[in-house]
Amino acid sequence: MQRRPQIGVIGPATAAAETLTLAEEVGAEIGRQGAVLICGGLGGLMEAAARGAKRVGGLTIGILPGVRAHEANEFIDVPVVTGMGEGRNVLVVRSSNAVIAVAGSYGTLSEIALALKLEIPVVGLGTWRLRDPEGNEPPIICASTPQQAVAQAFKAMRS
Amino acid sequence: MQRRPQIGVIGPATAAAETLTLAEEVGAEIGRQGAVLICGGLGGLMEAAARGAKRVGGLTIGILPGVRAHEANEFIDVPVVTGMGEGRNVLVVRSSNAVIAVAGSYGTLSEIALALKLEIPVVGLGTWRLRDPEGNEPPIICASTPQQAVAQAFKAMRS
Amino acid sequence: MQRRPQIGVIGPATAAAETLTLAEEVGAEIGRQGAVLICGGLGGLMEAAARGAKRVGGLTIGILPGVRAHEANEFIDVPVVTGMGEGRNVLVVRSSNAVIAVAGSYGTLSEIALALKLEIPVVGLGTWRLRDPEGNEPPIICASTPQQAVAQAFKAMRS
Amino acid sequence: MQRRPQIGVIGPATAAAETLTLAEEVGAEIGRQGAVLICGGLGGLMEAAARGAKRVGGLTIGILPGVRAHEANEFIDVPVVTGMGEGRNVLVVRSSNAVIAVAGSYGTLSEIALALKLEIPVVGLGTWRLRDPEGNEPPIICASTPQQAVAQAFKAMRS
Repeated sequence: MQRRPQIGVIGPATAAAETLTLAEEVGAEIGRQGAVLICGGLGGLMEAAARGAKRVGGLTIGILPGVRAHEANEFIDVPVVTGMGEGRNVLVVRSSNAVIAVAGSYGTLSEIALALKLEIPVVGLGTWRLRDPEGNEPPIICASTPQQAVAQAFKAMRS
Repeated sequence: MQRRPQIGVIGPATAAAETLTLAEEVGAEIGRQGAVLICGGLGGLMEAAARGAKRVGGLTIGILPGVRAHEANEFIDVPVVTGMGEGRNVLVVRSSNAVIAVAGSYGTLSEIALALKLEIPVVGLGTWRLRDPEGNEPPIICASTPQQAVAQAFKAMRS
Repeated sequence: MQRRPQIGVIGPATAAAETLTLAEEVGAEIGRQGAVLICGGLGGLMEAAARGAKRVGGLTIGILPGVRAHEANEFIDVPVVTGMGEGRNVLVVRSSNAVIAVAGSYGTLSEIALALKLEIPVVGLGTWRLRDPEGNEPPIICASTPQQAVAQAFKAMRS
Repeated sequence: MQRRPQIGVIGPATAAAETLTLAEEVGAEIGRQGAVLICGGLGGLMEAAARGAKRVGGLTIGILPGVRAHEANEFIDVPVVTGMGEGRNVLVVRSSNAVIAVAGSYGTLSEIALALKLEIPVVGLGTWRLRDPEGNEPPIICASTPQQAVAQAFKAMRS
């Protein structure tokens, strides 16, 4: 069996309407390309991405921080219930072949950092700008459209 | 959206042939009844259950202890990569509406205990026998066939 | 530097007075023998054991399930805040060179099982009685007094 | 009982000599001020900070990513063994009343982000520079000496 690629979409639980539209388009493109969508399972950006994936018949996994499956947004096919709070962020990252960061809160920043640490490709769509203590920028792949972000994620996970 | 029930199958990474046959039949029955199979994603009992579910077109989630998705057995549709070792057992339990224990190692025993603690129904098919310090047996639902085990799991999660 | 041994005391959050007395004596003996007491940090058995250790000037670590340090009982020197709920049980076990189970709830049972799985010695003082599917009892070391329990824990961790 | 404050020191496993000297001084100052040092327990920055704390008789806790206590550096009094890999970073942060970031790798960045998310004060000593998608800098308290860093950590945790 050839397993489907898994792409994580990471972003804040609250976001402006245009950001949510971007995330929904990212989710739809992930579904169209045949990948499984991994996300944190809650509202905002996570819900928009899952809605997009379901709109095109994709499969969505929500890795929840709390202890109740029904906290998952309605577009999550399979809630994974961790009861670990923010500790679940590392599972979102580890379960993804690449992650796409759209906008970004502190939780998103922690996921970007964990992905960089674990050498999982990170594509950014209007997200955090970072400089390490030596003034260097980490290797976040910049994208300017949802389609480009998903294409970059696929390209990065192959190489 | 009405979400599909999620049933965990827990059991050892190595088991006798007849036990694996039982587990495969449990997995197949879970698939036939339209539930998602949750398991630990590795070999032995976990692989047999996933094989059964895939034989009938079911959906299988493997919550892995290690850090590599390819450690999942070939019948897992979606590996969830935790990197938490035995710490992932609580996620297998929390992500299930009911769990079915087939045979059982120490890891299985920890999952039975966590399910009892978290008030998630446990169905046993030839598994551990337990007496608490007062001599009482915990409420593990005994089943004698795979079909009965899955029927009991469905019944228990509804009540 | 020679590090001090770490002994876990596991047991229920509520228990009869005589059980709490036993646990307090276990904690005191751990302190007298120069070991660090590891426990789940909450009330009942965990508090009694920590109280015993502090009575003799010992060091106590509470590995908490919640997100607030002040949930630790007053006899905990250092709260480790996990926010992982029952997922923290595996940390209590892994951080101990041996564990002593006094009485026992389902949470305790999960810790006994995890210790057996991870090959960390388990001493039982009036705890669960277990038989695996083949009818065998796991290697829990039985003790009948707090002093004996701690002596057995030291002996088992050395061998 | 009045519990001692717990201060986390976060930083990379490898660092330049002058950075290690800074970290050792941070650890020593934490010890002098009577706080418990929390860190990730491994080498580099973590070891330097623990060495500093032990030099002045402080207490050091190492929250380890692996499964073996002996992976802790020799200046750790109490290793907490998580077996969670980078998943342990959230425990370092949650167990601290304030964290001091010295220099910084990707792991450190994840801890800074988690602390910001969990509203635990972050003091930076030559660490990451961050701008969120709107161009705002997060509230990392800048310090220029080890003594100042520890003083700021104490001040922030009180307010």
